[in-house]
Amino acid sequence: MGFSFLPKDENFFVLFSKQAELAVAAANLFLEITSKGVYDEESVKQMRSLEHQADEVTHEIIERLNKTFITPFDREDIFTLTKELDSVIDMIYTITNRMRVYKIQEINADLVEFAKVIDKSVRALTVAIESLKDTKRPQAALDSCIEVNRLENIGDNMRDAILGKLFETATDPIYLVKWKEIYQFAETVLDICEDVAHVVESIIVKQA
Amino acid sequence: MGFSFLPKDENFFVLFSKQAELAVAAANLFLEITSKGVYDEESVKQMRSLEHQADEVTHEIIERLNKTFITPFDREDIFTLTKELDSVIDMIYTITNRMRVYKIQEINADLVEFAKVIDKSVRALTVAIESLKDTKRPQAALDSCIEVNRLENIGDNMRDAILGKLFETATDPIYLVKWKEIYQFAETVLDICEDVAHVVESIIVKQA
Amino acid sequence: MGFSFLPKDENFFVLFSKQAELAVAAANLFLEITSKGVYDEESVKQMRSLEHQADEVTHEIIERLNKTFITPFDREDIFTLTKELDSVIDMIYTITNRMRVYKIQEINADLVEFAKVIDKSVRALTVAIESLKDTKRPQAALDSCIEVNRLENIGDNMRDAILGKLFETATDPIYLVKWKEIYQFAETVLDICEDVAHVVESIIVKQA
Repeated sequence: MGFSFLPKDENFFVLFSKQAELAVAAANLFLEITSKGVYDEESVKQMRSLEHQADEVTHEIIERLNKTFITPFDREDIFTLTKELDSVIDMIYTITNRMRVYKIQEINADLVEFAKVIDKSVRALTVAIESLKDTKRPQAALDSCIEVNRLENIGDNMRDAILGKLFETATDPIYLVKWKEIYQFAETVLDICEDVAHVVESIIVKQA
Repeated sequence: MGFSFLPKDENFFVLFSKQAELAVAAANLFLEITSKGVYDEESVKQMRSLEHQADEVTHEIIERLNKTFITPFDREDIFTLTKELDSVIDMIYTITNRMRVYKIQEINADLVEFAKVIDKSVRALTVAIESLKDTKRPQAALDSCIEVNRLENIGDNMRDAILGKLFETATDPIYLVKWKEIYQFAETVLDICEDVAHVVESIIVKQA
Repeated sequence: MGFSFLPKDENFFVLFSKQAELAVAAANLFLEITSKGVYDEESVKQMRSLEHQADEVTHEIIERLNKTFITPFDREDIFTLTKELDSVIDMIYTITNRMRVYKIQEINADLVEFAKVIDKSVRALTVAIESLKDTKRPQAALDSCIEVNRLENIGDNMRDAILGKLFETATDPIYLVKWKEIYQFAETVLDICEDVAHVVESIIVKQA
C-alpha cells in the first residue's frame, strides 16, 4: 500500500457512499412494497435490516469523526450529513412499520406516487454525495441539490392535494387519522432529503 | 466610502433586520387573514411571497457566514439565529396554507387571539434583534426576550384552554383533527420565537 | 478549601447530577400519577415545579458554559447533554399536562407500563451521567447507555403493539386521537433518553 496524504478522508467518502447506497436500497424497497401494497412482517423485516446496516455505518462515521484530527470537510458538516442521511432511512422504515401497525392491506396510488418521488430524491442525493469527492468540479453536486429541492416542492404540493382530497371525501375519521399521518411522514422524507442537500451545498460553498 | 473595521459585521445586522422585518410582515398578514377568515389562493400567495423572500435572506446570511472569517458573534449563533427566525416565517406560512388545504372559511376567534400573540412576540423579537447592534447596552434586548418568553407561556395556556374546550365539545372528529393541528401549529410559532430569544440571550451573555 | 486544578469541571458535574436527579424525580412522579390515574391540577402543579427547577439548572449550565474557557468535555457536548436532559423532563411534563387538558380520569395499564420503562431509562441515564466523572473507567457509563438503547427498543415495540390494538378496537375516533398522541409522546420520552445516551457515548469515545 502506497503512501497517501488523505487516507482518512478517503475512508469518510467510502462510508458516505455506503450510507447513500443503503438510502437508495431503502427507497427502492419502499417503492416495491407500496407498489404491492403488502405491509407484512416480512416487508418490515427487510426494511429493518437496511435501517440497522445504516445505523452501523452512521456509528462508524461518528466514531471515526471523534478520533480523527483532519477531516475532508467541517466536522460539524460531516456529523450533520451522516445524521440527516440516517434520518432519511429511519423515516422510510418508520412509514413501512406504521403501515404494518395500521394493518393496511391495499395499494394506495397516492403513496406509490410519493414513493416514486422519494426514490428520485434519494438517487439525486447519492449523486450529490458522490460528487463531494471532487469539490473542484461542484456542478454535478449543485445540480443534484437543485433537483432534490425541486422534488421537495413537488412533494409539498402532492401532500397538499392529497390531504385536501382526504379531508374533503373521508367519511371514516379513523381512516383519515391513519392516512393523514402516513402522507405527512412521506413528505417528511423529502424534507429530510432537502436538509441533506443543504449540508452538501454548504460544504461546497465553504470549499469554494 | 470611508474605511471601516467592521464592514462585514454591519452587513450581518442589515440582513438580520431584513429577516426580522419579513417576520413582522408575515405575522401582520397572518393577523389580517385570520381576522377576515379568508384562506384562499390569494392569501396563501401573499404569504408564500414573504416566505420566499425570507428564504433568500437566510440563504444570503449562511453563504456570507461560510465565506467570512470575522463575524460579530459566534458563527454557530448566527447560523441558529437565522435558521430559527426563518422557521418562524415558515411555520406561519404552513398554518396559512394548511387552512387553505382544509378549505376553512370561517373566522375562528381563538385563532385570531393566537395571531395577536404571535404578532406581539415577533415584534418583541425584532426589538431584541435590533438591539444586538449595541451589545454594550443589552437591557432592551434582554427585556424583549423576557417578553417573548412571557408570550410563549400565554400561548401554552391558550392552547391548553382551547384544546380542552375542543375535546370537550367537538362532535365531529374530522373537525377536531383539523383544528387540533392548527392550534398546535399556532403555539409552535411561539415556541420557535422563544428559541430565537434564547439565541439572542446566549449572544448577549457571551459578549458580557 | 484546598487548591484544585478542576474547580469548574467539578461544578459542571454537580449541575449535571442535579439535573439527572430532577429527571429521576419527574419519572418517579409520572409513574405515581399514572398508577393512580389522577391527572388533576395538583399533579400537574407538582410536575411543573420539577420542570421549572430543571429549567433553572439548564440555564445555569448554559450560562456557565458561555463564561468558562476550560470545560471537562467538548462545549457542544455539554450544551447538547443539558438540552436533551431538559427535554426528557419537559416531555414528561407535557404528557402529564395533556392528560389534564384531555380530562382523562382513568388508570391506563398501557401507560403505566410506559411509565415503568421511562423510570428505568431515566435511572440508567443517571448512572451514565454520574459515571462521566471518571472517564478512565467508562464501562459503567457504556453499560448504562446500552440499557437506555435497549429500553428504547422495548418502547418502540410497546408503542407499535398498543397503537395496533388501539386502531383495531377503537370505535370512538376522539378517544383514539387523544390516546394516539399520549402513547406517541410516551415513546418520545424514551427517544430523547436515547439521544442523551448517544451524547454520553460520544463524550466517552472522545476521551478514550
